[in-house]
Amino acid sequence: MRIHTLTIVGVGLIGGSVGLAARRRGVARHVVGVGRQAASLEQARALGAIGEGCLDLAAAVRNAEIVVFCTPVDGIAEQVVTAAASCPPGALLTDAGSTKAALVREVEARLPAGARFVGSHPLAGSEKRGPQHADADLFQDRLTVLTPTPRTDPAAVERASSFWRALGSRVRLMSPEEHDRALAVTSHLPHLVASALAGMLPPELHELTATGFRDTTRIASGDPSIWTGIFRHNREAVLDALERFTDRLDEFRRALEAGDAAALNDLLAQGKKVRDALGS
Amino acid sequence: MRIHTLTIVGVGLIGGSVGLAARRRGVARHVVGVGRQAASLEQARALGAIGEGCLDLAAAVRNAEIVVFCTPVDGIAEQVVTAAASCPPGALLTDAGSTKAALVREVEARLPAGARFVGSHPLAGSEKRGPQHADADLFQDRLTVLTPTPRTDPAAVERASSFWRALGSRVRLMSPEEHDRALAVTSHLPHLVASALAGMLPPELHELTATGFRDTTRIASGDPSIWTGIFRHNREAVLDALERFTDRLDEFRRALEAGDAAALNDLLAQGKKVRDALGS
Repeated sequence: MRIHTLTIVGVGLIGGSVGLAARRRGVARHVVGVGRQAASLEQARALGAIGEGCLDLAAAVRNAEIVVFCTPVDGIAEQVVTAAASCPPGALLTDAGSTKAALVREVEARLPAGARFVGSHPLAGSEKRGPQHADADLFQDRLTVLTPTPRTDPAAVERASSFWRALGSRVRLMSPEEHDRALAVTSHLPHLVASALAGMLPPELHELTATGFRDTTRIASGDPSIWTGIFRHNREAVLDALERFTDRLDEFRRALEAGDAAALNDLLAQGKKVRDALGS
Repeated sequence: MRIHTLTIVGVGLIGGSVGLAARRRGVARHVVGVGRQAASLEQARALGAIGEGCLDLAAAVRNAEIVVFCTPVDGIAEQVVTAAASCPPGALLTDAGSTKAALVREVEARLPAGARFVGSHPLAGSEKRGPQHADADLFQDRLTVLTPTPRTDPAAVERASSFWRALGSRVRLMSPEEHDRALAVTSHLPHLVASALAGMLPPELHELTATGFRDTTRIASGDPSIWTGIFRHNREAVLDALERFTDRLDEFRRALEAGDAAALNDLLAQGKKVRDALGS
């Protein structure tokens, strides 16, 4: 894939990584970054993530073949609608948001006829923020989930797949709802759990933590406002996952109360089996 | 500190690391490893963690100045009592067990007069097992908690402190009960939580995990039988920590159900503040 202009809306860790990957791999001749602050655009430009920065979304998409939205999930739909009104006919609009159902629903309800949007979510990231943590290989060998609906143009899905593959990613299609139910378990619940665990640690115990606590809570350093948006977008599925998780904690509690070594060992062995299967 | 003979009971990741550190730093002239299998002793010897291996505990401690027990917590007290009957007068017995109160209580109840035991717990480790994962720098700049009681000989505490410091560790004194309450929160609860989270992941979602899930559940790969022993030894404190954790999950649940963005953001910000303070 080689396009002339790629516009990236939001040049933080994810957007910056899209830019670095696209430029290093020759996917786009021109990479335009859109942001709200001139300083972060200049930082992204200095790091080589974008070729030029632009504070105005409508102007930035005027020549775009592909526009990727790498902003917090609660703002993406609005930005997609705005961009669709200004980008060339046939341009592909896609995103990197962590939730899909509410976002895709809103975009589909408001998108003008002929505009082509495909929801996507590269399963890559970090608790860090900002283009200074961007990585040209962030998507290499990772999975990007595309979430077409019956209303999505199949050619646009094909093009979005090619785009993420060109950045090094594998691609899988799922419905937006299926994506959100899955990610509630694999990403949103772990974030909630890590945050709850970190949040209950009193200052006098900081010194008594070791690598186990630090690994288990690492993602709690993620940006609270970004995660508030994710949780609000995926409320039902996260509540469902949380209920199943507390049921499982209850099994541990009962085994502990009963002093049931065999039951404890079984529960721990089930966790180990899954974790070992995931690899490092 | 420079002693003639150090005996290490259990030459896995922790025991192997004690051996490597003691030999590299010239802390002990002779390092004897004790294990139940000739093959693991030979592996530890080949890796340089011990100078010689011995299958018989009583024989292995005959010339020991210091004996360190690096075996699962539910076997340590018995081994300490056995070793105390065979080691030279004045030898220091200490351990690396993850729980302290039950173990120290049992040792104090059974130890012959004149034997010197100091409970200790180096806050270092890994979900991995075996001397092949031992690391001469495992204790470097980490904290080792010593848990003397009113019955512990102060000179023995001094000697145990010198020993762990000689391996690179910082040292802090706490009562066994205070240690166990703290570690329930900083180590045992995180293990339970990681295991519960890993254990509820169905196979079809494995592909949809990314680094967040993997970090949060990494310690679930720990050995189930070792952790069953830890949980049984520290049952009350773990149950108490688990209750406080589920209370905190409940705060998240209520904020989600109410769609209360400010409350969610507050909870997430509290977790972030603590996690950021711990550093990477």
